[in-house]
Parts: sequence; C-alpha cells; structure tokens
Amino acid sequence: MKTINIGLLGCGTVGTGVVRLLLTNEVKHTQYAQAKMDVKRILVSDSAKKRDPVIRPELLTTNPDDILEDPSIDIVVEVMGGTGLAREYILRALRAGKNVVTANKDLMAQEGEELFREAARYDVDLLFEASVAGGIPIIGPLKNSLAGNRITKVMGIINGTTNFILTKMYEDGSEFEDVLKLSQELGYAETDPTADIEGWDAGRKIAILASIAFNTRVTFKDVYMEGITRISSLDIEYAKKLNCTIKLVGRASERDGQVEARVHPVLLSLSHPLAKVDGVYNAVYVEGDAVGDVMFQGPGAGEMPTASAVVGDILSVARNEIKGVTPRENCSCYDRKEILTIDRTVDKYFIRMTVVDRPGVLSQISGVFGQKDVSIDSLIQTKHSEGSAELALITDDVIDANLRSALDEIQHLEPVMAVSSVIRVEKDS
Amino acid sequence: MKTINIGLLGCGTVGTGVVRLLLTNEVKHTQYAQAKMDVKRILVSDSAKKRDPVIRPELLTTNPDDILEDPSIDIVVEVMGGTGLAREYILRALRAGKNVVTANKDLMAQEGEELFREAARYDVDLLFEASVAGGIPIIGPLKNSLAGNRITKVMGIINGTTNFILTKMYEDGSEFEDVLKLSQELGYAETDPTADIEGWDAGRKIAILASIAFNTRVTFKDVYMEGITRISSLDIEYAKKLNCTIKLVGRASERDGQVEARVHPVLLSLSHPLAKVDGVYNAVYVEGDAVGDVMFQGPGAGEMPTASAVVGDILSVARNEIKGVTPRENCSCYDRKEILTIDRTVDKYFIRMTVVDRPGVLSQISGVFGQKDVSIDSLIQTKHSEGSAELALITDDVIDANLRSALDEIQHLEPVMAVSSVIRVEKDS
Repeated sequence: MKTINIGLLGCGTVGTGVVRLLLTNEVKHTQYAQAKMDVKRILVSDSAKKRDPVIRPELLTTNPDDILEDPSIDIVVEVMGGTGLAREYILRALRAGKNVVTANKDLMAQEGEELFREAARYDVDLLFEASVAGGIPIIGPLKNSLAGNRITKVMGIINGTTNFILTKMYEDGSEFEDVLKLSQELGYAETDPTADIEGWDAGRKIAILASIAFNTRVTFKDVYMEGITRISSLDIEYAKKLNCTIKLVGRASERDGQVEARVHPVLLSLSHPLAKVDGVYNAVYVEGDAVGDVMFQGPGAGEMPTASAVVGDILSVARNEIKGVTPRENCSCYDRKEILTIDRTVDKYFIRMTVVDRPGVLSQISGVFGQKDVSIDSLIQTKHSEGSAELALITDDVIDANLRSALDEIQHLEPVMAVSSVIRVEKDS
Repeated sequence: MKTINIGLLGCGTVGTGVVRLLLTNEVKHTQYAQAKMDVKRILVSDSAKKRDPVIRPELLTTNPDDILEDPSIDIVVEVMGGTGLAREYILRALRAGKNVVTANKDLMAQEGEELFREAARYDVDLLFEASVAGGIPIIGPLKNSLAGNRITKVMGIINGTTNFILTKMYEDGSEFEDVLKLSQELGYAETDPTADIEGWDAGRKIAILASIAFNTRVTFKDVYMEGITRISSLDIEYAKKLNCTIKLVGRASERDGQVEARVHPVLLSLSHPLAKVDGVYNAVYVEGDAVGDVMFQGPGAGEMPTASAVVGDILSVARNEIKGVTPRENCSCYDRKEILTIDRTVDKYFIRMTVVDRPGVLSQISGVFGQKDVSIDSLIQTKHSEGSAELALITDDVIDANLRSALDEIQHLEPVMAVSSVIRVEKDS
C-alpha cells in the first residue's frame, strides 16, 4: 500500500488537531484513500517549545526546506496562518509539484488567483475547506453537489465571536462593551478583537465563498465591511418588537451578472433559518435557482472541527494522488463579473434618530428623504421624553448612495440631535 | 470540446427537472466539466403523453435498448423509480460500462451492494445524492468533507409529509387524521400515504445514510420503523410542557462497533437544531468525533431541488469521465459491523396511560417496571377525571426488550385501562 507523505507547516491548535485526527482515525483513512497518511515533518518556529504529546519531537524542524525540498512529500498542509511566509512556502510547494491543503482564509481571500494559477501550472491540488466556517462542509458542497445550480445568494453567520456577542446581547439585553469584555474573559474574543468585531474575519470568508458561488474572483478588498461596535441594546429591543434579531452576516449575491459582497449587521426576521443560529455556531445559507435554499450549520472554529475540514481535504488529495488525477478541481472562477460598489447596492434600512420634540420635525425629515428618493416604508415609533423624541423607521428598498446623502443632510438639520442607528434589514428569503 | 451523452430512464417530475436544469445552466455546466452535457435519449412508457415543452419529443423512446445499447451514452440517469425494471436497467447500464446516476432510494436501500459490486467490476461511477433528502447535499459531504471523522450518529428529518403533519399538529393542536386529510388535499401526502406515515420512506433513506456514515452495509430490512399514526394532540401537549416537540426522525448510530438504524417519532428538546426544522423542510444532523455536530437543511423533495442533486452527480461523473478516473468513489462499506436489533437498543421513553383512579395503582405499576429493570426518571403528571387518572412519565435509559415486557404485563393489570403512548425521548445531543 502506498504511503502519502505529509509535511505540516505550523503546529498550533489546528496543526496539533490535524496530527491527532490522522492518528485517531488512521484505519478509516487508510481504507478511504487506499493509502496510508503519514505526517513526515512538521515546521515550527521553536522546536524546544512544550507541545501536546501527540506531536513526536523527532518530526519537528525549523527549516522549511526539510519539507519543501523533500521530494517524498506529497501534500503540504499549511496551518501557520498569515500572508507573508505562508504565501512564500505555499508557492514553493506548488512549484515543487506538491499538493497543498490550507486553512488560511487571509491568503485565499487575497492571493487565491496567484495560488490557483501556480497549482494549475504544476498539476497539483489546492484545497481550502477549512478556510471558511471551520468544520462545516461548505466549499465542497458549493463546488460539487450544488454545481448544477446558478447560485443567487450566499449569506452566512461566519464569525463565532460576533455571533456569541450578539446572541448574548439579545438574550440578556446587555450592551456591546460589556459582552465584549465577557467574551474576552471566556476566550471567545481575542485581546485585540478588531478583526472580528469590525467584520474583517467574516469579510475574508465571504470573499472566498462569493468567488466559488459566482465563479468570479472576489477578493478581500472587494468586500464592503461594517462591524457590530455600534449595535446597542436599544437596537435589539427594536428588533425584538419587529420579530427580528440582529446578526452580523457575510452576504454575497448576484443579479444580472453583477456581484455584491459585504459584511454588516442585519435585522433578520426570526423566521429566517439563520436567525436561529446562536452562540459560537456558524451557518451558511445558500440560494440556488434549482435547489431553492439550503443551510449548512455547525461549529465554525476550534481545534478538532477545523482539523476535520483539513483532514477531509487531505483525504481528497490523497485519493486524487493515488488515481493520478491532480488537480481534480481547478479554480472555478471561469467568469469575470462586475463587482458592485456599496453605494450602488439596494436595501431596506432600519433608522433610529433623536430629534427635538416639536411639531414639523417629522415633515422636515421626510422632506429630505423624499428629495433623495428614499421612501419610508413604516414609521415604527415615536417615543417622547423631556423635550426630545426618538424616531424609528424602516425605509423601502433604497440605493445606498441616496440614503447616505439623505442622512448627511438630515444629520445637519437643526432639530436632529443624533442619527443613532442605520442597520440594513434582510429582505424575506 | 467533448460531449457527455446522457440517457435518461424515466421522464416524470424529476426527469423533466433534470432536462430543464441542464438546459437552463448549460453554460455554467460546460465550464465546470469542460464538456458539453447532452441528453441524447429519454426512455418513457408512453411517448404520446403530453409533456412539458422542455422535453423534445424526438428524444423519447419506449425501447430501453436505445439507451442501454447505445455505445455513445456515457451516463445513464435513472429517475423512473421502483426496484424491478430500474434494477434491471441499471445493472445492464453498469455492465455496458456506463456510469449511472440515480435518485432511487428504494433500490439503493435494498440492492446497493449488488449495484456497487457491478460498478466496481466495470470501472464506472454510481452516484445517488438525490436518493436522500432531495436537494440537500448530504451524501457528498459525508463521503468527502467529513471523511476524516468517525461518525457516531446521523439523525434526520427526512420525510417532508410527516414533518408537515407533525408541524401542523404542533402549531394548531389538531389531530393526526385531520391533518393527514389536509395534507392530501394540499398534495403533500399521497392518496395512499402508508409509505410516509409508517416511516418506510424515511427507513430507506436512513439505511442509505447509515451505510455511508458507518462504512458498513445497512439495508432497508435492517431498519426498525414506527410511524406517526398513533401520535395524538395530547402527546404534543405533553411535549410542549416538557419544552419539546415531536418529530419523526430517521436515526442511526454506532457504538463499540455496533450499529443501530431506526425510524420513529421522538420527543425532541426545542433546543435541538432539528426541532426548528418545520413544514416540508428536511434536515440531517450529523455527529462526528472531530467536527462535533453539523446540520444540513433544505428542501427534501420537489422537481428542481431533486434535479439539483441529480445534476450535481452528473457533473461529477462527467468530470471523472473526462479525466478518465471512473469510478472515483467506490462503495464505502469497508467494514462489516454488527447491526443491533431493536430489542437491544437503549432509550428513554415517554409513556402515557389511563388507569382506574384509586390508591395503590401507581405502586402496582412501578412494581412491574422495577421487576423488569425499567426505572422511572420522573412522573410528569397525574390527571384525575371521573374515576380514571392519566399517568404520564419518563423512564431512565432502558433496554427496549425490558420495556416491552414491562408494558405487556402492565397492560394486563386490572386497574390499567389503556397504555396510550410510548414515545422515545431523544437524549441531549
């Protein structure tokens, strides 16, 4: 029986999980791939560091050449993260005719095109299921089982930290800052939580998903991003009144050959399947012209869930290698579709503002909206308190640029004290 | 560019959908497979029948040889259903070196072993994603993305008719017979609903899922089945009190090399992801040792969702054919695991009975339970009304045979008027 030799770049949480899983389920993997998976070498930056006993010290090396220049290595598994060295090593691996499995969303969202070009040139596989939504199978199903469909929309809760925060705010009525602090204490949020709470992490993942769903290159810089730092308990109270919740979603859609990709909070009807995805869970909801809507849900991060995705890819590559058909899947960005900038996108919005409580203010505001082609679907509430009033309204479908321009003007109206919230409303699925 | 010639066996709802989808998304499919998909011939029983205009009459034939003996046909797509002619035609196709894509759950759940053996012998692909849960990708993800895991449990709402009925009963408090009638009027239930409401349809699907999940052959006759005909509005009332719903699930699990596969109603905690899957939707929940739990949700039937799964398989086969690597996936039943008969399975049960309302009855009943090693977790309620009392209780984990034996005896106790409900309780996930 053939042995598939694996070189691991990086040995943090995910790398350790990969080694553990390959050992635990060795018998099954061997049956599946008709080959033995063998982790031959592991690149680390510090070989003296104390590690999980599952990592055999004699496999460790600090020299990347021990993997990249070893002709017996069939698959390079990159789980070191980052875009600098990781990119360099992956390129070297591909050019040495080695298949690559990576969990690196930053890299795939930014440099996918270059990596795929080299993989195609050197006839090797480049798989990356673990780069989006941890253990949830989503890239595989989009590329295979759902390949018959024209995908029209992909929308996901693809960041566990922000979903934990928003779920907690929804359940307890607490404020963002307090829940963020709690999440940091619990280890769900990093010391520097910026990438999560500003939507950058989700932005990388939706770029990857959009590229696959719409068969056109969408990179991180094409994604509009808005985080959750301005969501308040009051917004969530309003959401509840409207039978909605507030979720941070990555959302990509295609219409008439134009693609949008964005990350922002949405008011989401409680009847939407994504509304029920709580805590650190992730889920990706997909609309296709034939299938209608399907949803994939599960743990979006963690040592073993992410290892599950990496090992699934390793086994696929192994099977292809045994059959001599790498690359089985090439890059699926066959098309070049226009990417819509955010100012041209169309949405309904929830808007909340504080105004001086006197007659005529509402008509002044709706006057500005009217001039800018922003029509109001419903005025939800006017709450009066000591000279000021809170207006909460929902717009019809409006063009982003029109809304921004109207709000710019409204903010400067003398009786308007503050525009506190501007949150998109997800249309019915 | 190569053309992949397709012969379609059957042209009902699904067959028509397949032709429609292949036409609608032809450009995408050609890019994906690097080949043109062409439906060359369609086998029907009545070529004069009026059909959807998407079906070109000149493609129709009533002679199976026009497909099975045409050497230019690369893929035979079987969407005629049944186990007689369908089996014969598929075997002939495989033996003629043709790849086969089928949506036939009856056949795959009964004759999978024979069909796979022939596919392996003749080096062709045999794919069947559409046989379980319509458009939801589940067989592909289990075989590929999740292949690194040892799967411990697969549990699904995999019959839309019964889920519609139970959802309606839960929402409206109505009785089974009334909702069944409504479902028949709405076209969600067949004139003869037996296969759905007795759990046979779900039984076929869970046999297929169990075979894939546990890498051992599980056939329809290995599945224990219990339908929903005896679920009453009163059972659902109790479920609500316990923060549960009642769902018909297909459920397969493995422990210590022993596999169980069954279909029956369960009291399911509202916090379980499957509890929120309502109406005609399907969902499959999977537990793996690495991934934890993932769930796949979507439309479990219908022309276009099912066509989505069939066309996904067609495209996979086409890609394999172009690369010359059929069969890429062989049968994955590498092992021969013991299948546990239902009498040896262990569950918690909800039991409801009517007894004569007098002192000592409860102790008489619990005496029998005790003798038979059935311990009571909690007595939920004793409702008294005109000389009789209703007892509702939940057992601890008990062996099925012990419970049956206890209930046999209890039913014959003089003060016991009726044992109305015996429903399994799904343990926490």
